[in-house]
Amino acid sequence: MKKLWLVYVLLIGIFIVYVLNYKLQAQSADPWETPGLRGNIEDTYVMVTFQIGIDYWKSVLKGFEDGAEELNVSVEYHGSTQHNASEQMTVLEQVIAKKPAGIALSAVNSKLLTATINKAVESGIPVVLFDSGAPDSKAYSYLGTDNYNAGVEAARKMAELTGGNGKIAIVTTPDQHNHQERTDGFKDTITSKYPGMTLVAVKDGRGDQVYSRQAAEQILSQYPDLAGIFATESRGGIGVAEAVEAHKGDDKLPKIISFDTDKGTLDLVKDGTISATMAQGTWNMGYWSLMELFQLHRDLAADPAAYAHNMPLPVPDTVDTGIDVVTRANVDNYYAK
Amino acid sequence: MKKLWLVYVLLIGIFIVYVLNYKLQAQSADPWETPGLRGNIEDTYVMVTFQIGIDYWKSVLKGFEDGAEELNVSVEYHGSTQHNASEQMTVLEQVIAKKPAGIALSAVNSKLLTATINKAVESGIPVVLFDSGAPDSKAYSYLGTDNYNAGVEAARKMAELTGGNGKIAIVTTPDQHNHQERTDGFKDTITSKYPGMTLVAVKDGRGDQVYSRQAAEQILSQYPDLAGIFATESRGGIGVAEAVEAHKGDDKLPKIISFDTDKGTLDLVKDGTISATMAQGTWNMGYWSLMELFQLHRDLAADPAAYAHNMPLPVPDTVDTGIDVVTRANVDNYYAK
Repeated sequence: MKKLWLVYVLLIGIFIVYVLNYKLQAQSADPWETPGLRGNIEDTYVMVTFQIGIDYWKSVLKGFEDGAEELNVSVEYHGSTQHNASEQMTVLEQVIAKKPAGIALSAVNSKLLTATINKAVESGIPVVLFDSGAPDSKAYSYLGTDNYNAGVEAARKMAELTGGNGKIAIVTTPDQHNHQERTDGFKDTITSKYPGMTLVAVKDGRGDQVYSRQAAEQILSQYPDLAGIFATESRGGIGVAEAVEAHKGDDKLPKIISFDTDKGTLDLVKDGTISATMAQGTWNMGYWSLMELFQLHRDLAADPAAYAHNMPLPVPDTVDTGIDVVTRANVDNYYAK
Repeated sequence: MKKLWLVYVLLIGIFIVYVLNYKLQAQSADPWETPGLRGNIEDTYVMVTFQIGIDYWKSVLKGFEDGAEELNVSVEYHGSTQHNASEQMTVLEQVIAKKPAGIALSAVNSKLLTATINKAVESGIPVVLFDSGAPDSKAYSYLGTDNYNAGVEAARKMAELTGGNGKIAIVTTPDQHNHQERTDGFKDTITSKYPGMTLVAVKDGRGDQVYSRQAAEQILSQYPDLAGIFATESRGGIGVAEAVEAHKGDDKLPKIISFDTDKGTLDLVKDGTISATMAQGTWNMGYWSLMELFQLHRDLAADPAAYAHNMPLPVPDTVDTGIDVVTRANVDNYYAK
């Protein structure tokens, strides 16, 4: 009897060992397969912005976090509270001191931030810029909206909304370069492609709701038959919407095209006050920044001098993250999740 | 004695089970960690080009394969043997019929290929375009060189090589759009930024070594004091180099800037006959095409209608894969590996 017991126990033991060992082998790598792209959870990638509280960055951060989760790395988010270069410089210095695996930065001022960006790159930290670049810095890549093209797309949509006819105005922020580009793309397209439309006014709304409302009121009193207004940023768009709303009951209200997808703008698109808004590829900015930093970190971790001798870089020079036209039909896809 | 044996066997058995189980757990996912980005080796991503035999695609394919290896997916490479749209269309139809996980295509003719590209997209296959796009197609993204910017960079290098002074000529292929853009970027920059340089001739080299040699000979006989020639493609560059070589022994030979990094061109850069050549980000075209297709495939595999309702896309609109200036100093980094 006892001998039999011994045999049973041995057989059961061998069986368990066999099963566990099989499971172990099945889990380990097939010689034809590779483990996939996967980082170290202790590598921290940092996203740095300015005016850290505004809605606009949320979707960028979501993309950055989504990329990090897929690649099993960690993220941190820092930035200046104000639209202030020296404050952002201080934040960036603090981030550099912690030697992160990579930095994705939106530069509040391209010239004033260049030296600090170069310092990070020279100390071996990969840096890419998004949304607001610094073309003369040593950052490896820039990811953002082609603002001229965004203006072109806005003009096409305006032609569709107005049937390609009538007086058109722009409310913009002329001293900001990206807004000038949006204005130029819009203006050039109206002029060259749509002879039935005439650009009658380009006013400064100072990126401010009240100023933009006043600018739109002036335009409307001068051109009561205005067919459309393009606002190159969202606070201006809300101001323009208020000015147009005040004329409710008029024969025909001008169509409004605005920019960006903060909740206020989306609500006005949903209720029809704003006909369309131009959505930037903010998630793409975050996600692809993380992907590029991951590649750069891997190369630089293996060889800190990897890019020292004018090697071809493993990341693109510039990524145009794209522009979508948001209307009532697809507005629900653009609320922050 | 036998009882003791039983206890020993049991203890050893439990110990083995414990060790194996521990190893098994260590291998499976930590709740805080994610498995990384990894596809299925049975998913095949296809790269499609034209003139399949030329050197130019090698580095693109290398990038495509590197991405696939990292992500544990498979690749195939197909294309037309000639510079022929209907041949490429047939190849693309055959690829579509196999329902691959994604297609990266360089379109030999943007208009003629559009219908076939749209057919692929409509049947649920992700398509991105690289190097040579089709802007009116439904492809999700385009990755390639900003050719106007390449011309700008070439002009800057020319100014550096000539000290910003003297007569300059261009040998190009005017009926190809990308070459016209390179010419425009070069021309605009010389005219607006370098008053000491004068563009004296723009000649058609037909993308051919012999024609380009003849074009350069004509220019040289008309302007014996020429300071520089920019050839917008590599066969032309080699032709121009032959024409200039024939003047060896002259007081001062014009500087040559060429385009691309085939072996013939790199050899001429190495021996100093060509002063610089503009290297396109070909590896980036392949690598980032694969990365984008991987994202698109994952979304579409989970929900074939993922992008049906004007959702924001998870890939950029346009990727400028960058341009590098290759000189004798860094030429060794650009030979195919």
